[in-house]
Amino acid sequence: MEPKLEELKQRLAEIYDLRRASSVLGWDQATYMPPGGAEARGRQIATLDRLAHEKFTHPTIGRMLVELRSYEGSLPYDSDEAALIRVARRDYERAVKVPSSFVAKFSAHAAATYEAWVKARPANDFAAVRPMLEKTLDYSRELANFFPGYDHIADPLIDFADYGMKAATVSALFAELRKNLVPIVQAIIAQPVADDSCIRQSFPEAQQLAFGQEVVKKLGYDFNRGRQDKTRHPFCTTFSLGDVRIATRVKENDLGDALFSTIHESGHAMYEQGIRAELEGTPLAHGTSSGVHESQSRLWENVVGRGRGFWEYFYPKLQTAFPLQLDDEPLDTFYRAINKVERSLIRTDADEVTYNLHVMIRFDLELQLLEGKLAVRDLPEAWRARYKSDLGLAAPDDRDGVLQDVHWYGGQIGGVFQGYTLGNILSAQFYEAATKAHPEIPNQIPRGEFGSLHGWLQENIYQHGSKFTANEIVKRATGQDLTIEPCIRYLRTKYGELYKLQHPE
Amino acid sequence: MEPKLEELKQRLAEIYDLRRASSVLGWDQATYMPPGGAEARGRQIATLDRLAHEKFTHPTIGRMLVELRSYEGSLPYDSDEAALIRVARRDYERAVKVPSSFVAKFSAHAAATYEAWVKARPANDFAAVRPMLEKTLDYSRELANFFPGYDHIADPLIDFADYGMKAATVSALFAELRKNLVPIVQAIIAQPVADDSCIRQSFPEAQQLAFGQEVVKKLGYDFNRGRQDKTRHPFCTTFSLGDVRIATRVKENDLGDALFSTIHESGHAMYEQGIRAELEGTPLAHGTSSGVHESQSRLWENVVGRGRGFWEYFYPKLQTAFPLQLDDEPLDTFYRAINKVERSLIRTDADEVTYNLHVMIRFDLELQLLEGKLAVRDLPEAWRARYKSDLGLAAPDDRDGVLQDVHWYGGQIGGVFQGYTLGNILSAQFYEAATKAHPEIPNQIPRGEFGSLHGWLQENIYQHGSKFTANEIVKRATGQDLTIEPCIRYLRTKYGELYKLQHPE
Repeated sequence: MEPKLEELKQRLAEIYDLRRASSVLGWDQATYMPPGGAEARGRQIATLDRLAHEKFTHPTIGRMLVELRSYEGSLPYDSDEAALIRVARRDYERAVKVPSSFVAKFSAHAAATYEAWVKARPANDFAAVRPMLEKTLDYSRELANFFPGYDHIADPLIDFADYGMKAATVSALFAELRKNLVPIVQAIIAQPVADDSCIRQSFPEAQQLAFGQEVVKKLGYDFNRGRQDKTRHPFCTTFSLGDVRIATRVKENDLGDALFSTIHESGHAMYEQGIRAELEGTPLAHGTSSGVHESQSRLWENVVGRGRGFWEYFYPKLQTAFPLQLDDEPLDTFYRAINKVERSLIRTDADEVTYNLHVMIRFDLELQLLEGKLAVRDLPEAWRARYKSDLGLAAPDDRDGVLQDVHWYGGQIGGVFQGYTLGNILSAQFYEAATKAHPEIPNQIPRGEFGSLHGWLQENIYQHGSKFTANEIVKRATGQDLTIEPCIRYLRTKYGELYKLQHPE
Repeated sequence: MEPKLEELKQRLAEIYDLRRASSVLGWDQATYMPPGGAEARGRQIATLDRLAHEKFTHPTIGRMLVELRSYEGSLPYDSDEAALIRVARRDYERAVKVPSSFVAKFSAHAAATYEAWVKARPANDFAAVRPMLEKTLDYSRELANFFPGYDHIADPLIDFADYGMKAATVSALFAELRKNLVPIVQAIIAQPVADDSCIRQSFPEAQQLAFGQEVVKKLGYDFNRGRQDKTRHPFCTTFSLGDVRIATRVKENDLGDALFSTIHESGHAMYEQGIRAELEGTPLAHGTSSGVHESQSRLWENVVGRGRGFWEYFYPKLQTAFPLQLDDEPLDTFYRAINKVERSLIRTDADEVTYNLHVMIRFDLELQLLEGKLAVRDLPEAWRARYKSDLGLAAPDDRDGVLQDVHWYGGQIGGVFQGYTLGNILSAQFYEAATKAHPEIPNQIPRGEFGSLHGWLQENIYQHGSKFTANEIVKRATGQDLTIEPCIRYLRTKYGELYKLQHPE
C-alpha cells in the first residue's frame, strides 16, 4: 500500500480508538454508572471527544490528504482505498471548521444536560432544563454557523447526519409524504379502534428480555459480538465491529415496548456487525447515514417484525413463553394488537402510520428554533399546539410532551429527527428491492428463515459501511433514487387489509 | 493559585481523564464485554495508555515542574499544592524513563495475554500462555532496565507499587515474618482440623450478592458512588472519586468466597471513596501504595470481617438470609469455619495465617525469574516444588498451580505480590492504632457500629490519597514505622484462642 496512506490509516485508527472509548463511557453512563459518577463522566467524555477532534483536525492530516490526492485519482472510485481517502477528506473538511474548544464545551454541556433531563423528565420539570436547552440552541446555531453559505441554518446539521440532504429537500419530501399519510390515518380512525389488551397484560421482565433475545438471534444479531443491557432510552452503540451492543428498557405491562425496541436496535446493530472487517479502524467502519441506519432498524422492526408472516413463525413461541397471558389469544388478535393505529402522544410508542407525523412535528420545530422564530421558552406550548393540530391530542404535561425524547437533551438541536422518517421511507424501498431480487423472502419468513433477506442486506448495504453515500447505496441497491412510493404502497396494502379500507387513498 | 500550577493541574486532569477512561474499558472487558470485542479492546486500551503516557512525559510538563520548584519550596511540606507538585515530579521522573512506544507495546501484550489466560486456565493449558509469559518477562526486565543503578532488578518494579521499598528490604521483612508464622502454622495443624462444612452448602447466588452488599453498605461503602458487578477475578476500580466500583465472583457452594472478596474489595473502594474531593483529577487522587491499599482491604476483610464481634452482629442476619442452611448452626461453628486454617493450594482461598506463605512463594519466584535464575518453562515445576516444601502440598495441575493468579497474565512480573503481605502487616498495625485512639471500637463492632473505625481510617488514611508516601502515612497514623509486631500479636491472640494453642510461639 502507498506509505502515505498507511500513515494516514494509522493516525485515523488512533482517532477511531478515542471515539470508541468515548462510546464505551457513554454506554456505561446510560446503563450501569452510579449517580456519583455523572460529573466526572461528563468531563471524561468531553476530554476524549476533544482529543479525537484535535487529532483529526491536526494540520498533518490535512497535508496527508493533499499529498494523497493524485494517488486517490489513480484508484477506482469504488475501491476501499479511494473511499477511505474520500470519506476522510469529507470528514476532515467538515471537522476543521469546528474549533476543538467548541467541541469540548458542547460535549460537556450535552453530558450535563442529559443528566439534568434524566431527573427533569420524571419530575415533569421543563423549567429545570430550559436554561440548558437554550444554551444547546445557541451552541447548535453556533455549530451551523461554522459552515457559512447554507440555504437554511439547519442544512449543515442535516448534512452531518444525512449527507446530501438539505432542509428544503427534506421539507418537500415530508410534505409529499404527509399528503399521502393523512388520508390513510383519517380512513383508519374512522374504523373501530383495534383492541390491544392482549399485549397490555403483565409480562415478567426476565421472560420479555429472553424472548426478545431469542428473536434477534434468529434474525442474525450475533451475541458473540454484542450484548443487550437495560437503559432508559433504547440505543445501539459500537465499540468495534466485533462488539456492537444494544440496550433497551422493559415495561412489564406493555409487551411491545421491549420486544420491538430490541428488534429495532438489533437492526442497527446487524448493520454495523455486517461491515467488512477490512474497514475496521477507518472512517468507513460505521453506517453511512442516519436515514440508511434507521432504514435497517425499521425494516426489521416494522416491515418484517410487525408482519403477519413473521408472527406465523414466532407467535407459537411467544405463547410458549407467556402461556398464561396468550394461550387463548388467536394470532390475528395479536397481529392486530401490534399494528394498532392510533393518534398518540409518544413518538416511540407510535404505530408505523402515524409515526412520521410525530417526526415531522419535531423536524418543523427544530427548523423554527434554529431560524429564531421559536424561543425555547415557547417550545412546550408550540409542541402542544402542533400535537393538537396534527394528531388531535393535547399532552397533559411536558413529561409526555416536549420532555419525551432524549435527543435535544443529549446533543444538538437540528439534523436529528429527519433520519427517522428517511429511514421509514427507505425501509420499504429496500425491502421491495430485496423481495424483487429474492421473491422467496415472503414465503421464508413464516418458516423462520431470514437468511435470504439478511444476505441481501449484507451484500447490498451492511458490508459497505460508509464506503458509499446514502444516495449511492440507495441507487446501487434499488436501482432508483430515494422515493416514497414503496412506503406508501406498503402502508396502503398492509393497513388496507388490516382495517378493511375500501379506498385507502 | 500560582498560574503555572493551575496550568499544570489542567494538563494533569486531561491525563487523569485518559487513564480513568482506560479503567472504564478495562472494567468492561472484565465484566460485560462479549468475546468478539477482545481484539479491538486491547488496542483501544493500549491507545489510551499510550496517549496518557505521551502527554504526561511531554517536555512541557518537565519544564513546568522545573519552573514550579521555587514556588514549591515556599509552600509547607504537607500542603495539597506542595504534595501535588512533589508527587507529579516523582511520577514524571519515573515516567520519562519509559518510552511511550514501550508502554503501548506492553499494554497491548498484557491485554492479549489476559485474554489467552482466560481460556488457558480452565483448559489447564500453561503451554498456551507460556510464550506470552516469556515475552512478559522480557518486557518486565526491559521495564526495570529503564531504571539503571538498582541493587536488584526487581527494585524499580517494587518501587512503582510500594514507593520506598526494595527487594532486599522486603525479603528481610518476609524472612522475619516467616520465622514467626511457621511455628503458628505448625502448632495449628497439629490440632484437629476445623469443620467448615456449614459454609460449603449450596447458597443461591442472588442472595449471596444481596447479603454481601448489605454488609459493605453497613461498613460504609457508598453505592451512590459505586456499584458491584460479577467478574472472574475480584477487583476494585476507580473511574472518579464519585464512582469507585467493586466486582466479584460467586461460588454457589462456598459462602465465604463472594462474601469476603466483597468486603475485601469494598475496603479498597472505601479508601478511594474517602479521598478528599479537592484532590480529584490530580496525581494525589488514588491510594498511596500497593501495601497501604491492601491494608485497607485486609483490615475490613480479616481483622474486622473475620472477627467474632463482627459476626455477633451479622450472623443472625446471615441466618435470616439462609435459614435452610444456617438456622441450626451456632455462631461458634460458623466463626471457626470462616477462620479454618489449612495448608491449601489457592492463595485467594487461603486463611490469614497461611496466606502470607503463598505470597512469599510468588515473591521469591518473581525475583528468580527477573534474575534469570528461573526460566518461564521451568516455572510450573518450581511452583510445585515450592508448594511442596513450604505448604506440604502438590498441585494436581497448573490450573490450581501457576495459572491460578491473573497478575502475571495481565501485567508485569515483579513488584506485584509484595503488596499483599505488606498490606496484611499494616492492617494489624493500623487497627491497633485505631483501637488505641478509640478503645470503644471492639465494643462497637458487635453492635454493628463501624463509624468510629471508619472515621479514624478516613481521617488518618483515606482522605490523603497519595499526598503522603506509605512510610509517611504509617508514621503519621501509628506513630511508628512499619512493624510486623502487631500482625504477629494479632495472629497469636486470635488463633491461640481459636485453636486453644498453649504456646503458639
